Amino acid sequence: MTEAERIDSPDTDDQVPTVRDEEGRLSGEFLTLVETAIADGDAAQLKELVGDLHEADVGDLIETLDADERGPFVQLLGEDFDFAALTELDESVRLKLLEELPAEALAEGIGELESDDAVYILEDLDAENQAAILDQLPYSDRVQLQRSLDYPEESAGRLMQTDFIAVPPFWSVGQTIDYMREAEELPDTFHEIFVVDPGFRLLGSVPLDKILRTKRATKIAEIMNEDAQPFEATEDREEVARSFERYNMVSAAVVDDAGRLVGMLMVDDIVDVIQEEAEEDLRALAGLGDEEISDDFIVTARSRFTWLVVNLGTAILASLVISLFEGTIEAMVALAVLMPIVASMGGNAGTQTMTVAVRALATQELDARNLWRVLRREVLVSLLNGFGLAVLIGVASAMWFSNTALGAVIGVAIVINMIFAGLSGLMIPVVLEKVKVDPAIASSVFVTTVTDVIGFFAFLGIAALWFNLPL
Amino acid sequence: MTEAERIDSPDTDDQVPTVRDEEGRLSGEFLTLVETAIADGDAAQLKELVGDLHEADVGDLIETLDADERGPFVQLLGEDFDFAALTELDESVRLKLLEELPAEALAEGIGELESDDAVYILEDLDAENQAAILDQLPYSDRVQLQRSLDYPEESAGRLMQTDFIAVPPFWSVGQTIDYMREAEELPDTFHEIFVVDPGFRLLGSVPLDKILRTKRATKIAEIMNEDAQPFEATEDREEVARSFERYNMVSAAVVDDAGRLVGMLMVDDIVDVIQEEAEEDLRALAGLGDEEISDDFIVTARSRFTWLVVNLGTAILASLVISLFEGTIEAMVALAVLMPIVASMGGNAGTQTMTVAVRALATQELDARNLWRVLRREVLVSLLNGFGLAVLIGVASAMWFSNTALGAVIGVAIVINMIFAGLSGLMIPVVLEKVKVDPAIASSVFVTTVTDVIGFFAFLGIAALWFNLPL
Repeated sequence: MTEAERIDSPDTDDQVPTVRDEEGRLSGEFLTLVETAIADGDAAQLKELVGDLHEADVGDLIETLDADERGPFVQLLGEDFDFAALTELDESVRLKLLEELPAEALAEGIGELESDDAVYILEDLDAENQAAILDQLPYSDRVQLQRSLDYPEESAGRLMQTDFIAVPPFWSVGQTIDYMREAEELPDTFHEIFVVDPGFRLLGSVPLDKILRTKRATKIAEIMNEDAQPFEATEDREEVARSFERYNMVSAAVVDDAGRLVGMLMVDDIVDVIQEEAEEDLRALAGLGDEEISDDFIVTARSRFTWLVVNLGTAILASLVISLFEGTIEAMVALAVLMPIVASMGGNAGTQTMTVAVRALATQELDARNLWRVLRREVLVSLLNGFGLAVLIGVASAMWFSNTALGAVIGVAIVINMIFAGLSGLMIPVVLEKVKVDPAIASSVFVTTVTDVIGFFAFLGIAALWFNLPL
Repeated sequence: MTEAERIDSPDTDDQVPTVRDEEGRLSGEFLTLVETAIADGDAAQLKELVGDLHEADVGDLIETLDADERGPFVQLLGEDFDFAALTELDESVRLKLLEELPAEALAEGIGELESDDAVYILEDLDAENQAAILDQLPYSDRVQLQRSLDYPEESAGRLMQTDFIAVPPFWSVGQTIDYMREAEELPDTFHEIFVVDPGFRLLGSVPLDKILRTKRATKIAEIMNEDAQPFEATEDREEVARSFERYNMVSAAVVDDAGRLVGMLMVDDIVDVIQEEAEEDLRALAGLGDEEISDDFIVTARSRFTWLVVNLGTAILASLVISLFEGTIEAMVALAVLMPIVASMGGNAGTQTMTVAVRALATQELDARNLWRVLRREVLVSLLNGFGLAVLIGVASAMWFSNTALGAVIGVAIVINMIFAGLSGLMIPVVLEKVKVDPAIASSVFVTTVTDVIGFFAFLGIAALWFNLPL
């Protein structure tokens, strides 16, 4: 949004400061006004400030408020609070906030949501709270939500919206348009309508632009797209996201196991999935669970500790290798000085290859068909970079310790470790995927174990042989 | 897609095998048929096989073919080849393929694309090839494409589509619908129409579902949404993607610096941006540029080498620290055995914190306002996990070397290094962001430097003091 637009905009209220600053963050000035209104219990002022905000902005605002301001904020807004904002919150913040709100207010707020948003909020609650809220909803809403909640976690059924438009194939375009003009209960937004038979089995779909461009007399059956494949409600959301992305989809039908239309998926929900899935790999590679920056420190510490202990195993293994060469090190302490270089260069190179491999597996760019091509490439890359580093490090070490042979030894060890780094960086994720373990979670421990063990063993072992040192 | 649907589908051709297997990969059987058709130069068979495929599937297919099959594949298909498939290819594959195709065929194929796809293909070509293709296009297409290409790389102007529907505010809904039914040149798909004044300045937009639900006599001005903010054509695509994601947008207007409507952005292009941006952080943290799995090994090796050399600096710094304590290690070689444990535990903990910080900065969840809250949390997490690891490692070391004091020394060193890991893991990305350096690219070198240097220094230094060893 440009400055010019903002000023020209006819409905800018001069009393309300800009909500977001130039970098897109909530502005300090706006935040101060909101916090003052909360402290004063001034509901009218608060409504004026945030009444027209988009649910995403309200969500950001809630997260930015102090924990003890959040409950009062929602309660002051009362009926003007859009519960859709809750879907924008980190899970820990949302759960804490939900606990503070009275059950009736909750049921009422959730009842007004689109079904996908309602499910998103309900699914994190424990069974008791879920039931308490569902019980207060009208029968038809309750049945619909319960059906969505019965689908597995992370399935299309959980993501879908249960409001959609379905018409019979023998209707004309004109009839369809008239129906949409008259109908009361329509989804908030939609980009296609669906065509069903009397048993509600999906026959096809028609995008809205097609309807708008077709003469009123034309039958829906003539313009409907029969090729678009629906998703099964039980299908994993990651698969669904991959299809949306691959085929540039905007919305899609969801059917039950009998092929009956039960819901509609929209791209904005899929966008969140795509982002989450890409982030999951990043977090997993760094040994992070699904922690959020708003989690408290005990939860965070516990979730990170497991990873550290697993890595401790790797570190101890490396130490065991070194301890095989205690005599060698005692005889030539320069080896202790240089050995971390060999291990860490291998570790870095292995991590590079592994990251490429993990993502390529996730996006299906790497499979049995091109594995050999990629493997050959990795070996060549390792050799090339290995020789490059070997020369750099070899010369530097030889000069540092005035010992040409030491330079040669570290050079050879580097090349060996780089080759193992490339091989393990590629093959460990591939093998893990093959045995159905998520490569993003488990690869890096194995890869660094290989590069540490090989690095120390190659360097200290070759040195012991070359200089004829004791073990 | 379910098995049942696939069989029911009325236009399934029994001669053509399934294109994708159950896991969504191109099926081997299909691939063999395609490769045979290419080898035989059997254009008719090839057209039968791939003529109806989605551009995304054709793109996948091209990447799976051997490099020398790709040119013949496109040329055999001739006019039946949809150039949109080129937008689905890795850059290196696309550039090589473009070189193989005759300029006229290229110009013709590109001329038939939506403007955003044409720009996507053209922008990677060198100036000469770009000009050669543009010269063969009709004047109006050429001017439009050239205008898009004149916007900065990674801007909204490069992403946008220049075909869209714009109507004056005084038109009725009926007039608008009739216009769309009659108009010849319309975008392939669209989800909203735009409202402009006689100078083509943007006044508002109307989503298609709104048009369909409104009576024909209603004026567009009455139902248009004036609040939706357009993007500037020069705006960075990452900012644009953040807005799309935050506000669940499906399409948006793009205006020039005078506020005139020049294009339309669609969510499917934004989805690619969102995924690329999330992946960029992952790659950057692992020291990878924008390499693709199809790049050749020299390109890959060169792009990874820089990172390895930068990390070599870190490793040498760590070695220098160790060399300060050569005498200490000679006197007590167990220190050399254990020292990598201290450094690597710090490195892992630092990477965890850093990954959280880098993502939180990218998604604007971390800023000056909650920095202290997050910093306090990181220190507490470091202390908690540091003590936990200190006990584990201290006891194990004491038992291994039958030396209680050694266990105590390593325990203290671990706690110290964990605290520095937490602090540097958070503060280094924050400071880099502050001085406008991408935290994803530069953080990990600095963080591991801190954890290596502090780890070796603390452990060897405390040991030297405690056991009164020589340096």
